[in-house]
Amino acid sequence: MVFLTRRERFNAAHRLFKPEWTDTKNFEVFGKCSNPNWHGHNYELFITIKGEPNLETGFVINLKQLSRIVRNRIIEQADHKNLNLEVPFMKGKIPTSENIAIAVWDEIEEDIVNLNCKLHCVKVVETENNSVEYYGN
Amino acid sequence: MVFLTRRERFNAAHRLFKPEWTDTKNFEVFGKCSNPNWHGHNYELFITIKGEPNLETGFVINLKQLSRIVRNRIIEQADHKNLNLEVPFMKGKIPTSENIAIAVWDEIEEDIVNLNCKLHCVKVVETENNSVEYYGN
Amino acid sequence: MVFLTRRERFNAAHRLFKPEWTDTKNFEVFGKCSNPNWHGHNYELFITIKGEPNLETGFVINLKQLSRIVRNRIIEQADHKNLNLEVPFMKGKIPTSENIAIAVWDEIEEDIVNLNCKLHCVKVVETENNSVEYYGN
Amino acid sequence: MVFLTRRERFNAAHRLFKPEWTDTKNFEVFGKCSNPNWHGHNYELFITIKGEPNLETGFVINLKQLSRIVRNRIIEQADHKNLNLEVPFMKGKIPTSENIAIAVWDEIEEDIVNLNCKLHCVKVVETENNSVEYYGN
Amino acid sequence: MVFLTRRERFNAAHRLFKPEWTDTKNFEVFGKCSNPNWHGHNYELFITIKGEPNLETGFVINLKQLSRIVRNRIIEQADHKNLNLEVPFMKGKIPTSENIAIAVWDEIEEDIVNLNCKLHCVKVVETENNSVEYYGN
Amino acid sequence: MVFLTRRERFNAAHRLFKPEWTDTKNFEVFGKCSNPNWHGHNYELFITIKGEPNLETGFVINLKQLSRIVRNRIIEQADHKNLNLEVPFMKGKIPTSENIAIAVWDEIEEDIVNLNCKLHCVKVVETENNSVEYYGN
Repeated sequence: MVFLTRRERFNAAHRLFKPEWTDTKNFEVFGKCSNPNWHGHNYELFITIKGEPNLETGFVINLKQLSRIVRNRIIEQADHKNLNLEVPFMKGKIPTSENIAIAVWDEIEEDIVNLNCKLHCVKVVETENNSVEYYGN
Repeated sequence: MVFLTRRERFNAAHRLFKPEWTDTKNFEVFGKCSNPNWHGHNYELFITIKGEPNLETGFVINLKQLSRIVRNRIIEQADHKNLNLEVPFMKGKIPTSENIAIAVWDEIEEDIVNLNCKLHCVKVVETENNSVEYYGN
Repeated sequence: MVFLTRRERFNAAHRLFKPEWTDTKNFEVFGKCSNPNWHGHNYELFITIKGEPNLETGFVINLKQLSRIVRNRIIEQADHKNLNLEVPFMKGKIPTSENIAIAVWDEIEEDIVNLNCKLHCVKVVETENNSVEYYGN
Repeated sequence: MVFLTRRERFNAAHRLFKPEWTDTKNFEVFGKCSNPNWHGHNYELFITIKGEPNLETGFVINLKQLSRIVRNRIIEQADHKNLNLEVPFMKGKIPTSENIAIAVWDEIEEDIVNLNCKLHCVKVVETENNSVEYYGN
Repeated sequence: MVFLTRRERFNAAHRLFKPEWTDTKNFEVFGKCSNPNWHGHNYELFITIKGEPNLETGFVINLKQLSRIVRNRIIEQADHKNLNLEVPFMKGKIPTSENIAIAVWDEIEEDIVNLNCKLHCVKVVETENNSVEYYGN
Repeated sequence: MVFLTRRERFNAAHRLFKPEWTDTKNFEVFGKCSNPNWHGHNYELFITIKGEPNLETGFVINLKQLSRIVRNRIIEQADHKNLNLEVPFMKGKIPTSENIAIAVWDEIEEDIVNLNCKLHCVKVVETENNSVEYYGN
């Protein structure tokens, strides 16, 4: 088994808040991340695939194909967008890094499987100090 | 002369657009950066001071004092904020990296001078691929 | 299960040596790291927590709480300190990266558990070329 | 168990192609990586060892010994070399990152075992966007 | 005056040698960089433009236009190529970082001027330890 | 004119304090950096040379020669050492980054001149947030 990781990036606005909660409660839980006027990040995604290298090509997965999946399914939806308002795969979810990682997994897993590969990990880096990894359930 | 640089960071939302222009014109000039729902970045600031090191302390400037100025004047105003809507020093300005660099310079220069130092450069890093430097006029 | 990682940093002096050994033996085993006059590093800690994201907040752990634990228990004890002489959690231990990782784990695990989370990994980066990970025993 | 990672680097030329295939087929599968005139990379290796820290030294492995193994077995063979033409441990293999990771593992594992340590992972970073990890079979 | 910097990257093979010299002389001067079988690097280019921000847009230069120039003139010629054999702008030049920086400058300057901007600096990063800057003559 | 930069690294302990001052005064000015038990850093040096590339070699300076100078004069003196106690070129100086940059300049300038090159800049990076540049006087 070899694990191959591809990095892709997107820049997006978001806000952490629950519409059912008061502003005070939102601020108490989410702090300055609940600012109603939004803030944003340069997000990095690290998508890890596992598999046996193909005996003919030496590839676990063709990186062009993997990159195309991540760009079509994720980057084109999320780059220069508002994660709360207009990104289909985040609809109805609080855009924490945890929820982004799970949503990215759910969005790309089928396409990865269709290439006879296994999705191993989705890592979301929100800042140089904070990141999240999801390995499926 | 020695040049000392301090890095500080803030995360913010923004949108590049001119209210006088149509959406089409805005999109033509600013592309996806003009998205009405905002997007955002992890901004890095590199503030460079020049001066002779103090003979007693070996410091061009006390980093604690420099950091306090940048945090009070810039980071507290801009971190987890919307650069178009609620950051006083960006009011009425299109929040390009160029305009952020100039506005940061104007905001902190007097405080630096009051410490008997010279502000040399404000560098704004918007993404790993794009940055701007301003040296005053 | 989602894994969340927080980075914190501290700068410290240390020396690798065993008091029971001669200087020659210490130098033979630890090389220039055994210098009696100390040397030092910019240490990076990566603390990884695992858990199910809270259904209400989307958080595995509130990063403010995690950061507070690491700062109170580790950074305040170790930052700008001598790891051999004055850091309580390193007392009696040779300050290799391996031993620092284990000691940090032991120091913070209970506080993490008290937040109903599981500590998954403590990573210590000593230089850009050398790092250590500990996953508990 | 503690995991210790050492980074080493080498710069090399390579080309992805199968001699049995036509140029057209090679280009179809490997794209611009199949350029007959070669291209190259700054490769980073991250070698991870696992073991119990020695009670006397606090070391899982002496980093000088680990570094010597990686430099003798890998860096001296591959640095400033052509991975297709003149690197013994890549002979007959298409130099994908996957195959490099496996070949590095096979090349150093015995020396690691002879130090009473276990090789845990070989990570090959080809570019800031692409990397591979191999954990043995 | 504001200075704007765009990073672009390319991966290439090269060899430092003078055809007029013997292999021994080449090795004496260029060391392992003269390997006849080539080696390679992940090159980073940092292209810096200077100018007054446009009063309407807040841009010194439209980054899309700058990126297009660098990609058309440089990246498409040099990426996944051999700098000695097949890159037009390096023809007849020893591909040291110094010569690459000068050649990139000469290749893109006119296009920058045609956008009413001034090219300020071309920086070539060959490895994390070695880089070169050229500011024109 | 081309500017060539070489990075070298060293790890050292230090303390900021003036022996003539009381502990209270030292702590007031230098804060936790005045800890009598020392602390330390991973220092990065960026040494920049300027000159015309040699017409024969395409080199401003042979990097092997530049690296040898910096290693002999600086790294061997300072790596894994205490900057206050045992580094000849820092004797009698408070080891601020400013003073380190000036001292490194004075230590290597003559050797650079002897290679018919000009020393342009010495940059000292103490942490990811703090750095200093010196261009001579």
